Amino acid sequence: MSLGVSPLDAERRKYRPRLPTVLARGVAGLEVEAGGPTAAVADADAIRKHFPQTFGRPLLRFRSGGPGGAAKPLRVGVVLSGGQAPGGHNVIAGILDALRGVHGESRLHGFLGGPRGIFTGQHRELTVDLVEPYRNSGGFDMIGSGRDKIETPEQLAACRATCEKLGLDALVIIGGDDSNTNAAVLAEYFLEQQLDLSVIGVPKTIDGDLKGGPVEASFGFDTASKVYGELIGNICRDAKSAGKYWHFVKLMGRSASHVTLECALRTRPNLAWIGEEVRKNELTLREIVDRTADVVRRRREAGRSYGVVLVPEGLIEFIPEMRVLIDELNALLALHAGGDAETQRRRAAEQLTAPSAAVLESLPGNIREQLLKDRDSHGNVQVSLIETEALLAVKVAERLGGELKAHKHFFGYEGRCAAPSNFDADYTYGLGHVAVALIAHGATGAMAALRNLSGPHESWEPVGVPLTSLMRIEQRKGKPAPVIEKALVDLEGPVFKTFAAERETWQVEDAYRYPGAIQYFGPAEVADVTTATLRLEQGAD
Amino acid sequence: MSLGVSPLDAERRKYRPRLPTVLARGVAGLEVEAGGPTAAVADADAIRKHFPQTFGRPLLRFRSGGPGGAAKPLRVGVVLSGGQAPGGHNVIAGILDALRGVHGESRLHGFLGGPRGIFTGQHRELTVDLVEPYRNSGGFDMIGSGRDKIETPEQLAACRATCEKLGLDALVIIGGDDSNTNAAVLAEYFLEQQLDLSVIGVPKTIDGDLKGGPVEASFGFDTASKVYGELIGNICRDAKSAGKYWHFVKLMGRSASHVTLECALRTRPNLAWIGEEVRKNELTLREIVDRTADVVRRRREAGRSYGVVLVPEGLIEFIPEMRVLIDELNALLALHAGGDAETQRRRAAEQLTAPSAAVLESLPGNIREQLLKDRDSHGNVQVSLIETEALLAVKVAERLGGELKAHKHFFGYEGRCAAPSNFDADYTYGLGHVAVALIAHGATGAMAALRNLSGPHESWEPVGVPLTSLMRIEQRKGKPAPVIEKALVDLEGPVFKTFAAERETWQVEDAYRYPGAIQYFGPAEVADVTTATLRLEQGAD
Repeated sequence: MSLGVSPLDAERRKYRPRLPTVLARGVAGLEVEAGGPTAAVADADAIRKHFPQTFGRPLLRFRSGGPGGAAKPLRVGVVLSGGQAPGGHNVIAGILDALRGVHGESRLHGFLGGPRGIFTGQHRELTVDLVEPYRNSGGFDMIGSGRDKIETPEQLAACRATCEKLGLDALVIIGGDDSNTNAAVLAEYFLEQQLDLSVIGVPKTIDGDLKGGPVEASFGFDTASKVYGELIGNICRDAKSAGKYWHFVKLMGRSASHVTLECALRTRPNLAWIGEEVRKNELTLREIVDRTADVVRRRREAGRSYGVVLVPEGLIEFIPEMRVLIDELNALLALHAGGDAETQRRRAAEQLTAPSAAVLESLPGNIREQLLKDRDSHGNVQVSLIETEALLAVKVAERLGGELKAHKHFFGYEGRCAAPSNFDADYTYGLGHVAVALIAHGATGAMAALRNLSGPHESWEPVGVPLTSLMRIEQRKGKPAPVIEKALVDLEGPVFKTFAAERETWQVEDAYRYPGAIQYFGPAEVADVTTATLRLEQGAD
Repeated sequence: MSLGVSPLDAERRKYRPRLPTVLARGVAGLEVEAGGPTAAVADADAIRKHFPQTFGRPLLRFRSGGPGGAAKPLRVGVVLSGGQAPGGHNVIAGILDALRGVHGESRLHGFLGGPRGIFTGQHRELTVDLVEPYRNSGGFDMIGSGRDKIETPEQLAACRATCEKLGLDALVIIGGDDSNTNAAVLAEYFLEQQLDLSVIGVPKTIDGDLKGGPVEASFGFDTASKVYGELIGNICRDAKSAGKYWHFVKLMGRSASHVTLECALRTRPNLAWIGEEVRKNELTLREIVDRTADVVRRRREAGRSYGVVLVPEGLIEFIPEMRVLIDELNALLALHAGGDAETQRRRAAEQLTAPSAAVLESLPGNIREQLLKDRDSHGNVQVSLIETEALLAVKVAERLGGELKAHKHFFGYEGRCAAPSNFDADYTYGLGHVAVALIAHGATGAMAALRNLSGPHESWEPVGVPLTSLMRIEQRKGKPAPVIEKALVDLEGPVFKTFAAERETWQVEDAYRYPGAIQYFGPAEVADVTTATLRLEQGAD
């Protein structure tokens, strides 16, 4: 038995991520080119008020330049924030290698357990030896992650203290939209405090909803959707082979349905619900059930008593009547907070408006239970625990008068820590380099990005994107707040339109596509091609 | 968008499965060598009575021989029986190619939808063009599968009629233990009817429980356990990265725990329950819960509030008290059959023995519901639908006095139709050739097998194993019946012993291993190595 490191893990450690040509000789000799001032996605004036120091900064581009000259050693801190995404370790490896290219005495510190590690001062130096076994590996276990934010004056001051103690020149925050919003706040705070400390963000999320403008994709989306695509393809093949089961598959993606859309394009299931379209068309749960049941019925009539349905994790919140019910429940649960749980639940259920009470009544018992019982740390309904795939399976069976052999699946945790695909391994290693290039040029409040991602890696273009340029004002906890905008599925964009043009042909005829497992070796068309989403967005096919 | 066939699917069609040296030039020139007479696993006299014609036949071996001479064209029928397993299509491709090597006019017919296709006469000719797109692909969708048996005199006669109408020389049954038992029955029947029609079995099941004597492994076990290993490894990495979740993973394998054992060796989870050990040690549900809770507690004390637990699908039936409860319920449900479902359930629950009533009472509401409500086609409790992973998570949380952030997974359908690994692709293509070699030499009532499977494919040794030699008498539906013995996990064998020697070191320290996705390309140690189970059984490591 070869215990310990798996053969694939061992091989992946040897993989040399491919850098864009402009970064291939490191970042020391790069010349920076600043564009014109930037604005914001919306609400520019309000954003400017929140970020007087960092608002309006230019987009930064890089080109190969001179020999780089005698740079000074840099000290950088890095933190992983929020949910795991394949490639996080390679961002860190990229930062480390680029830093050492700038100056052999440069130092990298990793904060442990997410942003909390910064304000509590928990960190470890990330040396070449320490990083080595994590190269091209999945997971965030090198330094851990966490979901804390750095918000209170005390936390901000504690962060400052930690960074000063370590003598940091820069802090790199690898995270999603919220974490990058937090990076913008920190950048502004450090400038306000007249501290010479860059804050650079790196776009991470398997959900694919952190993109826009020059930011083409968050890392991890490629790998995670490939893992899910593998499993869904296998299930499609199983459904067709067995000829008797319907599979209801829920996929991660609470705020946006990019993962479901990408997986649908990869596997061509009989039905895939896209939350953004459900909301736009104001579909009721009944309509969703009816339409699903209709596909089941039509396939049965065509001799196919089997099929595959995809639903995004957040579907339930995209259904207007369900959104209203959840909002009412949250408000009522807060109102009755303090009593025992059972009384609180009963009161909340009694005081719902008539339409919401009817919606609640229409749900299967276990879903009602989930809505009323499980709470998150703010006392709210825990939407992510609601078994939407089971809800749909049960309601569709009811609508069809009984028999429906259904299996339910939820794919999420399986994909967040997969070893990054070649694309994500290259992309994240490059992002680490871009972060250091930005630091070396004194940028702050910027997101590291690479453009032209659907093209060959040689032509990827490093840029620094002002975080404020990605922002708008949204309501958070009942108050207007500046946030990086979440990118929802664009119903007028080429990705959704391709899906919409094809999906009817997938419903009754079998058009399943079987992507198979992620390949790290083999022909480029098997091992190196990125998502349908990115390729369609960029007209690459 | 490259719709239609996925790039990996397209590449896999080009893969040329590797044959053992002795089969590399086809089967036409092979010479057969018969060993001494065989007996049975047990109950030889009774087996002989059931199979007077086919009992005691010799093990057949093959060696390269002369040029093969002028063979006549062969007509063969093939059927896929039972659950999907990766490689089924390659058995068929192997049969087709070997048949054409024997004689260009040979014909292959595929029966549709499993054994039912034989007695209803539903079939299709499998030509080179038809088989082409299925080479090295997952699934059984080329001709479908089914779970019917061929048992009644009418069904046997109908099979005979179909085979005679098609002028078949042989029938190849690709299936698990039950289907191969059925193959033995058919072989005996055809001889009894003085019909010159070979029946050859091929060992298929992802569960890995069809092996023994010269049969080293069923096909599909390698691929399926690699898919599950990928996912479990990813989840282990996620657990460690997030640092706050316990994952309870149920794996396919109702009668035997080979899949769980193999996955445990591949991924080294904190805990893996092996049904055979639970039965041997007569563990109660409470003991299983206590021991699991103890690991959770000890990890928590060591600062690790996360972990991964594997359970085999059949765990619940291996727990003696649960087995008794299920048997009582089945008997009582049969006794009260006819009444309305609710009354029937209530009566059954009331008439349980006191110990079983106490066990039932101790179960969470939804599990009680599952035990009492869902029935299979024989009216029995549907054990496979019981969410053992949820049961364990709930009971462990109770034992720990509340908080346990648990996620539940069931991996099964994801792996049954994956594209076969290189091992399974080679193995199944070879099995197809062995089947034809047996047919060409007039064998019947034999299973096609390959030996030395943990060694290089060149040295795999084709054999024909008398089906009766794999049999014993067991109780089926209350009556003694000759059946092919299911291979359970051998608690004294090297696979379990390796696990038992290692597992304590996996409990509190993190020893996770991340196998990653199946690779079809790349270095041999990544792409070509078979299961730990097979390698340990053969002392290959």
